[in-house]
Amino acid sequence: MRTPPSLLSLTVESALHNLCNISDLSPLPDHILLDLFLRTLQAGKLTEKVLKLFLATGNDKVLSLIEALNIQHILTPVLPTTNIEDNEVDIVIAALHSDLTSFMIEWKPVFSRFHLIIVKDPDLSEELQIPEGFNLDVYTKSDIDRVVGSSTSILFSGYSCRYFGYLISQKKYIISVDDDCIPARDSSGALVDIIAQHADNLKTPATPFFFNTIYDPYRKGADFVRGYPFSLRSGVACALSCGLWLNLADYDAPTQALKPGQRNTRYVDAVLTVPARAMMPVSGINIAFNRELVGPALIPALKLAGEGKLRWETVEDIWSGMCVKVICDHLGLGVKSGLPYVWRNERGNAIDSLKKEWEGVKLMEEVVPFFQSVRLPQSAIKAEDCVVEMAKSVKEQLGQSDPMFARAAEAMVEWVKLWKAVRSSQLST
Amino acid sequence: MRTPPSLLSLTVESALHNLCNISDLSPLPDHILLDLFLRTLQAGKLTEKVLKLFLATGNDKVLSLIEALNIQHILTPVLPTTNIEDNEVDIVIAALHSDLTSFMIEWKPVFSRFHLIIVKDPDLSEELQIPEGFNLDVYTKSDIDRVVGSSTSILFSGYSCRYFGYLISQKKYIISVDDDCIPARDSSGALVDIIAQHADNLKTPATPFFFNTIYDPYRKGADFVRGYPFSLRSGVACALSCGLWLNLADYDAPTQALKPGQRNTRYVDAVLTVPARAMMPVSGINIAFNRELVGPALIPALKLAGEGKLRWETVEDIWSGMCVKVICDHLGLGVKSGLPYVWRNERGNAIDSLKKEWEGVKLMEEVVPFFQSVRLPQSAIKAEDCVVEMAKSVKEQLGQSDPMFARAAEAMVEWVKLWKAVRSSQLST
Repeated sequence: MRTPPSLLSLTVESALHNLCNISDLSPLPDHILLDLFLRTLQAGKLTEKVLKLFLATGNDKVLSLIEALNIQHILTPVLPTTNIEDNEVDIVIAALHSDLTSFMIEWKPVFSRFHLIIVKDPDLSEELQIPEGFNLDVYTKSDIDRVVGSSTSILFSGYSCRYFGYLISQKKYIISVDDDCIPARDSSGALVDIIAQHADNLKTPATPFFFNTIYDPYRKGADFVRGYPFSLRSGVACALSCGLWLNLADYDAPTQALKPGQRNTRYVDAVLTVPARAMMPVSGINIAFNRELVGPALIPALKLAGEGKLRWETVEDIWSGMCVKVICDHLGLGVKSGLPYVWRNERGNAIDSLKKEWEGVKLMEEVVPFFQSVRLPQSAIKAEDCVVEMAKSVKEQLGQSDPMFARAAEAMVEWVKLWKAVRSSQLST
Repeated sequence: MRTPPSLLSLTVESALHNLCNISDLSPLPDHILLDLFLRTLQAGKLTEKVLKLFLATGNDKVLSLIEALNIQHILTPVLPTTNIEDNEVDIVIAALHSDLTSFMIEWKPVFSRFHLIIVKDPDLSEELQIPEGFNLDVYTKSDIDRVVGSSTSILFSGYSCRYFGYLISQKKYIISVDDDCIPARDSSGALVDIIAQHADNLKTPATPFFFNTIYDPYRKGADFVRGYPFSLRSGVACALSCGLWLNLADYDAPTQALKPGQRNTRYVDAVLTVPARAMMPVSGINIAFNRELVGPALIPALKLAGEGKLRWETVEDIWSGMCVKVICDHLGLGVKSGLPYVWRNERGNAIDSLKKEWEGVKLMEEVVPFFQSVRLPQSAIKAEDCVVEMAKSVKEQLGQSDPMFARAAEAMVEWVKLWKAVRSSQLST
């Protein structure tokens, strides 16, 4: 065995400074080797090359430390992996109002680097007013008709028009925010950059198989708590990031009507992975997702007969969100919730909505148990397959009780066809 | 039908002010009745008597609103249900250090109203130093020996001595905090009252069957998000409240050794129910529980061979926490996590711990899959039954792989016997 002559006479400190010149660590006594390894880690000096040196010692304690600490994960966060590239993201805005001027101006500091897809609600007749200075494409009813063709099972009206943006985007990530929201400020008064925060959520792993009590371990300054199995610390890819709302929270019409003065003022500085198999009400107001992983699963499928132009009159995002969550659980992907916040302004009168619409609230009683129990076959290995399988279950298990569910199942199947058609036409151009 | 002569001529506003003089609302037209009902709710005037008036109308919309809003729940929060009575709680402190003076002085503003149970680590030889001015009972090795008798399967040494306090308490709630923690301050600088915050968590319902994205809906200023099924809004009893730590978080020895300078400075102003079937690492540093519901499930069962007097050298609370979580899921009870925070001071050198102890980290790889898959029989309807059943599964499924698990199973069975014996001796005195 080749012995570096100077090594045994080195102190741990000097060895630490000379690691790059050492070719063999095995002559070191056990306790010095372990000490050196820990200090190397602490000093952030554990490069690939140095790691190999330690691995080559074959020392039990060092090897078990490397295994237990899941060293690959320790090394990773040093890289600037969560910086999002301008060309990786499409911001999709559903225009339910014709005048987007103030909305766009408020968001300019956050949005200006990125490409925007603005989809005009096909029910909206006025011309859109959009200020200069953005990189964007606007899509209207005629674009939708051209792409969707004669299909009538998918309706892109109202809040659902954004899904057309999801359909035609070719970017890896999509971020979408309602047009009645403006940037929030965090507890220190700083403007919240929803793109950066959603990117942090999506680009770092999610941990759905064990709950970390101190929230997302991949945030700066955070970590895994004692007792968290090391084998689960590398996590899984995060597919969906659900942001929240300050000022007006996303309540249903009855709650809003009951508590018209209630405002959400609590800035909760946390992101967490929603555990596997836990169902949740995804709100479409402020979300981001990895389009390549779960794009086909975000579908405007469940349309209420009396659906209106106010959030509390819709459940399309709640339905779609439960589809995505079941599919993420099935595919071993993660969903995070928490940051970023947006500031949500008031719109509409909840009491008027209450008088006209009760369907949404009642439907949830059937919908939630369905999604809690539905299981997808092992053969479904892509989001598209999962949606088709889920549509079958929807038709079988819910289709009889309300024609709305049968229509939702139909829209899901149709959506996957459309998704594939758009992809193949994008490939051929 | 008796018609109050003036009612039809009243405006909604004046009706609202005269509700107590009205004996029948049914003559009112549909839309006025609904309007009146909503305004009554908003004005906080929906007393039991007024609710009966509205129920008596038999009006479809009003009835469906009452049902959907789960009006019982709307009425409840008005009552001061979360105020904790002095005689409802025991604060249990494990004394691992002989001088409790500064610890007790720091906690005086929070603890002084309540009864304390201080259990002295049987391994500690020095006399305890405890300042005057508290209502407390101290238990030492001789008390433990007297109650536990000849049984040797349960070891109350080190951190585990607190469980003796859980065993002999006769209060409904127990709150326990490590003796290296002092009160934290919230983001506004106010002293955190852990008793009040744990009481809020335990006395309001938990919601384990559907994830509320805006955290605990029972906190002041919070609510259920759109899409949350009304049938699940009344929630279930909360059995366990897990608080967190500022300054030094509860890391394992490797993480602590790797990041010796890392401090938890983020005050996350949130409480949430950990979803059913999601496993979590409960930390024993700062917890509270409903002793009547789950007391028998908090057990010092898993003792590491090389267990020391530092938190990161123990897993007794992690094991016990997963037992409690599985039992809560089985019995339909809830576990909350988040607030309150305590300020945790430094103690010990993680690198020293690393050198002597690796068992805990490795054991989790076997323990977590076990708890994730274990199911209890329907016949187990009390925490005691559940522990005995769980012990059987531990012995069968884990007992072969490491004698530590067989000993844990034995301790669990023994604990339930001890629990019952203490209860019956308390009844007879």
